[in-house]
Amino acid sequence: MTLTPTREDKFSFGLWTIGYNGTDPFGGPTRPHLDVVEAVTRLSELGAYGLTFHDDDLFAFGSTDAERQTEIDRLKQALADTGLIVPMVTTNLFSAPVFKDGGFTSNDRAVRRFALRKVMRNLDLAAELGAQTFVMWGGREGAEYDAAKDIRSALSRYREAVNLLGDYVTDKGYDIRFAIEPKPNEPRGDILLPTLGHAIAFINTLERPELVGVNPEVGHEQMAGLNFTAGIAQALDAGKLFHIDLNGQRGIKYDQDLVFGHGDLQNAFSLVDLLENGGPNGGQAYTGPRHFDYKPSRTEDTAGVWTSAAANMRTYLLLKERAAAFRADPEVQAALAASRVPELAVPTLAAGESYDDLIADRSAYEDFDTAEYLGGKGFGFVHLQQLALEHVMGAR
Amino acid sequence: MTLTPTREDKFSFGLWTIGYNGTDPFGGPTRPHLDVVEAVTRLSELGAYGLTFHDDDLFAFGSTDAERQTEIDRLKQALADTGLIVPMVTTNLFSAPVFKDGGFTSNDRAVRRFALRKVMRNLDLAAELGAQTFVMWGGREGAEYDAAKDIRSALSRYREAVNLLGDYVTDKGYDIRFAIEPKPNEPRGDILLPTLGHAIAFINTLERPELVGVNPEVGHEQMAGLNFTAGIAQALDAGKLFHIDLNGQRGIKYDQDLVFGHGDLQNAFSLVDLLENGGPNGGQAYTGPRHFDYKPSRTEDTAGVWTSAAANMRTYLLLKERAAAFRADPEVQAALAASRVPELAVPTLAAGESYDDLIADRSAYEDFDTAEYLGGKGFGFVHLQQLALEHVMGAR
Amino acid sequence: MTLTPTREDKFSFGLWTIGYNGTDPFGGPTRPHLDVVEAVTRLSELGAYGLTFHDDDLFAFGSTDAERQTEIDRLKQALADTGLIVPMVTTNLFSAPVFKDGGFTSNDRAVRRFALRKVMRNLDLAAELGAQTFVMWGGREGAEYDAAKDIRSALSRYREAVNLLGDYVTDKGYDIRFAIEPKPNEPRGDILLPTLGHAIAFINTLERPELVGVNPEVGHEQMAGLNFTAGIAQALDAGKLFHIDLNGQRGIKYDQDLVFGHGDLQNAFSLVDLLENGGPNGGQAYTGPRHFDYKPSRTEDTAGVWTSAAANMRTYLLLKERAAAFRADPEVQAALAASRVPELAVPTLAAGESYDDLIADRSAYEDFDTAEYLGGKGFGFVHLQQLALEHVMGAR
Amino acid sequence: MTLTPTREDKFSFGLWTIGYNGTDPFGGPTRPHLDVVEAVTRLSELGAYGLTFHDDDLFAFGSTDAERQTEIDRLKQALADTGLIVPMVTTNLFSAPVFKDGGFTSNDRAVRRFALRKVMRNLDLAAELGAQTFVMWGGREGAEYDAAKDIRSALSRYREAVNLLGDYVTDKGYDIRFAIEPKPNEPRGDILLPTLGHAIAFINTLERPELVGVNPEVGHEQMAGLNFTAGIAQALDAGKLFHIDLNGQRGIKYDQDLVFGHGDLQNAFSLVDLLENGGPNGGQAYTGPRHFDYKPSRTEDTAGVWTSAAANMRTYLLLKERAAAFRADPEVQAALAASRVPELAVPTLAAGESYDDLIADRSAYEDFDTAEYLGGKGFGFVHLQQLALEHVMGAR
Repeated sequence: MTLTPTREDKFSFGLWTIGYNGTDPFGGPTRPHLDVVEAVTRLSELGAYGLTFHDDDLFAFGSTDAERQTEIDRLKQALADTGLIVPMVTTNLFSAPVFKDGGFTSNDRAVRRFALRKVMRNLDLAAELGAQTFVMWGGREGAEYDAAKDIRSALSRYREAVNLLGDYVTDKGYDIRFAIEPKPNEPRGDILLPTLGHAIAFINTLERPELVGVNPEVGHEQMAGLNFTAGIAQALDAGKLFHIDLNGQRGIKYDQDLVFGHGDLQNAFSLVDLLENGGPNGGQAYTGPRHFDYKPSRTEDTAGVWTSAAANMRTYLLLKERAAAFRADPEVQAALAASRVPELAVPTLAAGESYDDLIADRSAYEDFDTAEYLGGKGFGFVHLQQLALEHVMGAR
Repeated sequence: MTLTPTREDKFSFGLWTIGYNGTDPFGGPTRPHLDVVEAVTRLSELGAYGLTFHDDDLFAFGSTDAERQTEIDRLKQALADTGLIVPMVTTNLFSAPVFKDGGFTSNDRAVRRFALRKVMRNLDLAAELGAQTFVMWGGREGAEYDAAKDIRSALSRYREAVNLLGDYVTDKGYDIRFAIEPKPNEPRGDILLPTLGHAIAFINTLERPELVGVNPEVGHEQMAGLNFTAGIAQALDAGKLFHIDLNGQRGIKYDQDLVFGHGDLQNAFSLVDLLENGGPNGGQAYTGPRHFDYKPSRTEDTAGVWTSAAANMRTYLLLKERAAAFRADPEVQAALAASRVPELAVPTLAAGESYDDLIADRSAYEDFDTAEYLGGKGFGFVHLQQLALEHVMGAR
Repeated sequence: MTLTPTREDKFSFGLWTIGYNGTDPFGGPTRPHLDVVEAVTRLSELGAYGLTFHDDDLFAFGSTDAERQTEIDRLKQALADTGLIVPMVTTNLFSAPVFKDGGFTSNDRAVRRFALRKVMRNLDLAAELGAQTFVMWGGREGAEYDAAKDIRSALSRYREAVNLLGDYVTDKGYDIRFAIEPKPNEPRGDILLPTLGHAIAFINTLERPELVGVNPEVGHEQMAGLNFTAGIAQALDAGKLFHIDLNGQRGIKYDQDLVFGHGDLQNAFSLVDLLENGGPNGGQAYTGPRHFDYKPSRTEDTAGVWTSAAANMRTYLLLKERAAAFRADPEVQAALAASRVPELAVPTLAAGESYDDLIADRSAYEDFDTAEYLGGKGFGFVHLQQLALEHVMGAR
Repeated sequence: MTLTPTREDKFSFGLWTIGYNGTDPFGGPTRPHLDVVEAVTRLSELGAYGLTFHDDDLFAFGSTDAERQTEIDRLKQALADTGLIVPMVTTNLFSAPVFKDGGFTSNDRAVRRFALRKVMRNLDLAAELGAQTFVMWGGREGAEYDAAKDIRSALSRYREAVNLLGDYVTDKGYDIRFAIEPKPNEPRGDILLPTLGHAIAFINTLERPELVGVNPEVGHEQMAGLNFTAGIAQALDAGKLFHIDLNGQRGIKYDQDLVFGHGDLQNAFSLVDLLENGGPNGGQAYTGPRHFDYKPSRTEDTAGVWTSAAANMRTYLLLKERAAAFRADPEVQAALAASRVPELAVPTLAAGESYDDLIADRSAYEDFDTAEYLGGKGFGFVHLQQLALEHVMGAR
């Protein structure tokens, strides 16, 4: 296995990631603007296959049509020159003052109308560029104060917006699916659809649920203390993993957007095993872009930006290698069996067994020896975990 | 408005709450066993309307049929004597050693079969007692280590179990609905269906989704740093708030199960306003039991148990009173309007307006003055929040 | 008791608080620049007694001497016109790119030297303005990656800096004490001296510990899940509460800087009781400025800035009023006694009792009936807490 | 380097760790009692050098003198038979009902006196067994409610207790030092001395501070979201790292007590590098016991207990091996230099330089080019972190 990224690895980066200028709540830029052509060129050289962007990343909010077109044309040329593609596009409904209370769910109806227009226009661009996924991160859809936002009204407006956009892409014949990106908080005190669970639950209330999935981000779920791999498995179970944002986060705090693997390494390992191999018991894996939504640390200069971009891909490939070795290790296979992990794939009822049959089975209840589980019938999970750890560490 | 609880308030308590003996990870009991008859009698005197229980609360795990029946009979008599009802029943699949890796999703298939039998038997009892809600808290359904649990297999087994139980109550004609209780962690490192969002998303994959809702608990959602009121609003939006567990939690830490209101008071205020009045913009409220799932602190003696039980109800009623005053205050109404909170209930598109109409509306985009939002068009949320705070504090 | 602030209340505000323009990690300004003269005038009208600032708040980083002096003069005139004072000054070592790895503990020695010079120059200004407290928030002193920062070296450099500055103010005869402001993270992944405990521990290693105390901020300690009131009590116990930053935070997440009381209201109540009355058992209270380090929410316009500023002071005064009522309530006094709260102020050993005496006291051990504590000897803490809650709510 | 533990590695285990029976807040034991002789024998076979214990681990609370002596004698014989030592002893002031409000700081003075007696008696035993460290974990010293505990009184009582015990061991001539073990919460809502910073700050207020240090636990500091390695570095800087508790924790949640390394692996790596090699810039390392305070997961049977015990030691040795390789890698050395990590060990002022000299140095301020840091002068931290990660992963 090679650690050099290729197009087949489907690594993509947001223009805002490598283009992050270092601004944070307590300081201004530490790096100059990154031009999109340089972004495309460098990503291509590093082995990525895709660039993604918000409209405002490419052309500043309030650009004239001509300014906008100039940047689009420059991007297209760079794509043509390098072979990079744009697998995903997204719209910025959070930076400009007009969106200070959100876009689709701003209390201000005029803002909501403006937001819809901005998104529709950007959907046209997404389609033009061949993007098949349209991410919606509603970072400003939320509130700091409970009385300030009627959540049910907000969900109704969010639904109205997504339903309308679903009609729009359907009518236009765009080959685009939507992916909602959940986040629990920051920049709002509480954000609507705070986890991938909430997002999938919401999607099920839409008119065209099949058009909409989720774009979970490692750090966003971990900001709520949730196990990212477990969440992704549930998204896969629901058929809703339309896109994924890979990065690193060190626990429950502000959104760090570290390089993938620079946060919770063990969870990153199980994630890669899930995406590549389907998790412990296998099953359908993820075939979409491996999209990095990270920020080069504010301490880095321009050279450090590209070093950090490369680090994301290399860490992913390293973990992929380790996951393969983990699975190929006979001791791991024995430990999985001892832990009865594969047994969970076996239905609890036998084929054709009814609940009456189960009730009639005295071995299941009346004669079942629960006392054996005190002091015995251990699951051996710690041993299995130690094997996983040692594979992560390349120690086996 | 009175602060004395009545049956109409629909306050209910778990037998395990007032019966909590003080055991925690670092110490044994500080209080003796509470008999169910005393529990019913005292709750009735305090003004509650319902008692709920796990099977193992009423009769110890492993009881003989006779022992079990004795306790059931004693409970029934106490209910008859007091007029208390049993609005909800639940099954313990987490305390006994046999459930050390969970019940419905234990890696051990024999355990899963045993768990189903235990639940079916308890469903019969629930129906017999007239309970209309059957709560399922899967506290042991989870893992500490990513390789130890194949999450997709676990979700399949969970689904298999709930589908089977749905068939069971349907076939038996029981007037019972299920309510899944989410929790992010503790006692497992990560628990399956960690938030109400994940639970509702899962419910949508069931064969009989209409039979299954959620039973969110204040502290459980707050253990993930989530806004409980916002979550309940989403559950209501989805038609899935079948039951609710009220208590208090002071931030992201172990499960505290404090008295309702003894945690995040301002969120408790907005919750009561939502349950009673439908939230800022009104709408359908919650009509089910106000169920307290709290623990009298381990430092308290028996008298303290009943003081704490009463405190839950009194705080709820106080908050209900404050929510009514909040709504009746003309300055609050003016502030809500200034914050455009009601405007969020207005659809973004006019009646009959299509996206083409919206695109044709130059005032929505081309002529929309986004610059006004820099320095102007403030939302006045802090003023509104201050009014809410002052109503919580009884200062207006 | 009045709820109208007066100078005697010693309310002060940072120029950066009311002057916050709304920039956050995901958006630019939503409000224009606030001129210092207007800041002073408005604060004076609202009843505050003091303004505080970082050098860069008053004159932009890189200002010429003339530009700097102009702003200083304008500030002085405004102070003279209004009677406001400058009780505290602080230096910005975190916004400019040069401080991207910190000031006193940047890995880059030239930066450290520059930082010292910037601080010394600002100390001269602080002395000139009569400020008696010089706050040091080392927000960039930290790291995202463990290998990037040798913590012991960093502590040595921090110590070197503070020792030098201590010499400086001593030699110059400035009537200034230093107050270190701890914060666990943001903008760095981990910040040096993350809690007030770490800061006090560090201060004890300085050459002039008597010159240095802490400036704890509500939200900063709560970002680590710590009880702010308990921390302040320890700071008072150590004689190190030199200054305090009041604001609101809703749990472990990004730094919210909400209005005081808009976060954890019950902890705000106990804090005010501690600052004003010395806590449950009384004792020396805090006599310094009540300094608000909050941010008017980004959703607010200019009018909202002043509404929010006033809300801080009003909430403080409301809580002060409630704390007085709490203490004056005979039922509270009885509950405190029943909870044996005052008994904790009684030394465990009698006056003159030695450990040999204690060992000889069979009632203390051999004859002590520990069994009484099972089921009995309850502490009544929940009742006491309910009384506190009801006083917060103005319900008694 | 070998991965087989030897006595020279100074690995020790608490009797309560391998002896943990699986009880947690939601379930009873899943494993039988572990006899101390078996514990000593098995630990010896696995390569540990020490056993530690609470009094109540060895002989149940309330044991008669004879019962107590029997267990002590059995332990002594086992130590003699195996060569294991008892490097540390600690006293349980948290499990019995009498300690429901704590030991040294219970509001109940009689309990405080009892606690002191219990500790003094156990100090005699510690001395008899040759333990040189006496750990004090005040897990019940705290409160759930702010009014229930006067923190300054509590600190006074804590101080009284530790001062008395300091007199006691000094007078008796015991070769014992105390180590306070901080924890932020659980089982109390908030615990006194919540972090190692608070504990060291408190120690500085004692009569014999030199006798008292800290015993930080990985999971405890991480439960407050703090960087454990950074905290240990500060403890070393203060000369206060008297003992250490190694285990694993996956973020801010209940106390997990996982195997060392099964939590935050990258922080575990930097910790081992600090303990063994002094951290990035070297310096005095830690020479005391490597004590594991973990719990074998409740899912494990008896065999799993010993597997998990071995896993702690193996992971430590693996990380030690990786830390050595990290340091030996020339590319790492180059990266450290490029990140200017060693430069932080260089004093900011030159030898003999005064602040007047610094003020006179125009290159430090007036002529210092801060503009270079925008876009340039990057620190290369991400590259360094990637190298560290790859060494953790054994990929270099």
